[in-house]
Amino acid sequence: MSGERLAVLTGGQLAESYAKTAHGVLRYGTREVVCVIDPVHAGRPAVDVVPFCASPAPVVADVATARDLGATTVLLGVAPLGGRLTAAWRETLLAALRMGLHVEAGLHTDLGADPELAAAARAAGVGIRDLRAVPADLGVPLAEPVGAQVVHTVGSDCAIGKMSVVLELDRAARARGLGSVFVATGQTGVAISGWGMAVDHVISDFVAGAADRLVREGADRGDLLWLEGQGSIYHPAYSGVTLGLLHGSSADALVLCHRAGRTAVFDYPGTALPPLPEIVRGYEQAAGWVRPARVAAVALNTAGLDDAAARRAVDDAAAETGLVADDVVRFGAARVLDAVLAALPG
Amino acid sequence: MSGERLAVLTGGQLAESYAKTAHGVLRYGTREVVCVIDPVHAGRPAVDVVPFCASPAPVVADVATARDLGATTVLLGVAPLGGRLTAAWRETLLAALRMGLHVEAGLHTDLGADPELAAAARAAGVGIRDLRAVPADLGVPLAEPVGAQVVHTVGSDCAIGKMSVVLELDRAARARGLGSVFVATGQTGVAISGWGMAVDHVISDFVAGAADRLVREGADRGDLLWLEGQGSIYHPAYSGVTLGLLHGSSADALVLCHRAGRTAVFDYPGTALPPLPEIVRGYEQAAGWVRPARVAAVALNTAGLDDAAARRAVDDAAAETGLVADDVVRFGAARVLDAVLAALPG
Repeated sequence: MSGERLAVLTGGQLAESYAKTAHGVLRYGTREVVCVIDPVHAGRPAVDVVPFCASPAPVVADVATARDLGATTVLLGVAPLGGRLTAAWRETLLAALRMGLHVEAGLHTDLGADPELAAAARAAGVGIRDLRAVPADLGVPLAEPVGAQVVHTVGSDCAIGKMSVVLELDRAARARGLGSVFVATGQTGVAISGWGMAVDHVISDFVAGAADRLVREGADRGDLLWLEGQGSIYHPAYSGVTLGLLHGSSADALVLCHRAGRTAVFDYPGTALPPLPEIVRGYEQAAGWVRPARVAAVALNTAGLDDAAARRAVDDAAAETGLVADDVVRFGAARVLDAVLAALPG
Repeated sequence: MSGERLAVLTGGQLAESYAKTAHGVLRYGTREVVCVIDPVHAGRPAVDVVPFCASPAPVVADVATARDLGATTVLLGVAPLGGRLTAAWRETLLAALRMGLHVEAGLHTDLGADPELAAAARAAGVGIRDLRAVPADLGVPLAEPVGAQVVHTVGSDCAIGKMSVVLELDRAARARGLGSVFVATGQTGVAISGWGMAVDHVISDFVAGAADRLVREGADRGDLLWLEGQGSIYHPAYSGVTLGLLHGSSADALVLCHRAGRTAVFDYPGTALPPLPEIVRGYEQAAGWVRPARVAAVALNTAGLDDAAARRAVDDAAAETGLVADDVVRFGAARVLDAVLAALPG
């Protein structure tokens, strides 16, 4: 929407990895962000809380302050486990609607279908945009070539930066003049790029069909597609989304995303992760059940490490796997991009 | 419902594989079936049309005849490709509602939300039951033991008999006095057993959570659960459902279902299937990403082969995999059941 100015709501969690929609929009979004709403971090600039955030937006304590700063839309910037509306979020979003602000969110809860929220929006003459809304006519994948080269990020876990990695690689590829396109598969990616689909909200029968549709839409926009990954084949709750996306993607190459030092699934600490080379093999086996694809490089998330430790972690990952490895957010996307382009057919 | 008597509607397709809901209810259902409604096959007993069908139900030509035979409920017994309501089905179901019969169906189309059908049901004081309806409060799997032993069928492809295999194994286990329970994950299974969930209709983020809920409900009903499988990790469209179900199942043992002689995915002939031992390894690897489980036996579907060829196919599968193999529908469930019970811990 033109003239739109976002206030990104994180309600105390701006520093947490659950605030990934906020982090993505602050780092990569092309839409204007007026402020972040977060009482815990209020008074500081967002860049002090969110690493690698280029936005000058301040953090304010409440919706009223955001409105006074000129915000037109409150974007819910947190994706809680399970994705449902909590009582606290409900109160804040209701307040925003009653102040005449639009609301945008990517929960599994359909806010537009909520009687109380819908009534408040109607009364104030504002809109509720559901970033997870999906087309009603999805089906199964076509058995036809896609007409573009597809690179897909896969990961050892959730919320470790699979979207940031494809955004960095897309940005670097465009800087080289390539016909590169970011293809969003989650609500944050849709919030950033303005198109795509939140595949985790699709009926499970249609996940692969949704991925197939997205890469075909992407092929109309460019010839080098960066398809955002979701979840992990090692994640007890979300592995089905991951495999459906992988099999529907027609991927020509994979980039494996990993959080340095992580040895178990974050949400399920009892579920251990295997060593990195085994994760590479796991994804190549899983892809090969339908269509072979190799892991071309490892994108390591070294957040929390100092530079020397980050370099060591990158070197270790490269030595362990025999692949190019780098932290593309911290050290730049060039080396991983080179490895991916060398791995693509043709 | 007590006092309930089913008429199973197949509208000309009783002999086709699309009538799998009808076939399942006729073969394994514990609910009373008064008749099948199918003008093409009317006048014959259902057993003449449906192989291995134990029901004495006649096939009649129309809904009025079914009503005169005492039917209280019309169950749509066909799952058409795409799962949507056709104009012909609409006419027949409307007629049934207007005659005062309940309607039960497992389409993707939500019949209860259809204004014309809903109005007819209200006017006649009867109900519409959607077998694919899923709970609104699904989430992610709990990280806690289930309190029952879980056996899960997995397969090389779709529509090769994964449900029939667990129904045969459950029946055989109950005949031995075990506290055995069939856990339905598709609309036909729900039609047969009266509970369960059509997991292919669940939002993809919640497939594993749905499986987890089903086995916990099953554990309240018995201590040996047979969880119906869906799809295949080798299927380009449905692999995500399969992996989500596998990881949410807490399976202690797997039974691999395979159609004898099949070398490619039926819906995607360009997608070759690997040899049977590799499929066994594929499922064990996939399970092991979250929780290890071994394939305890192979359940071969030998439909279409003569008895001698079926025996050879079973022997070949056993020799190839080193596992017990049998066609549990054709030759009985005893050997596969023995192998599964021997493989369970404790």
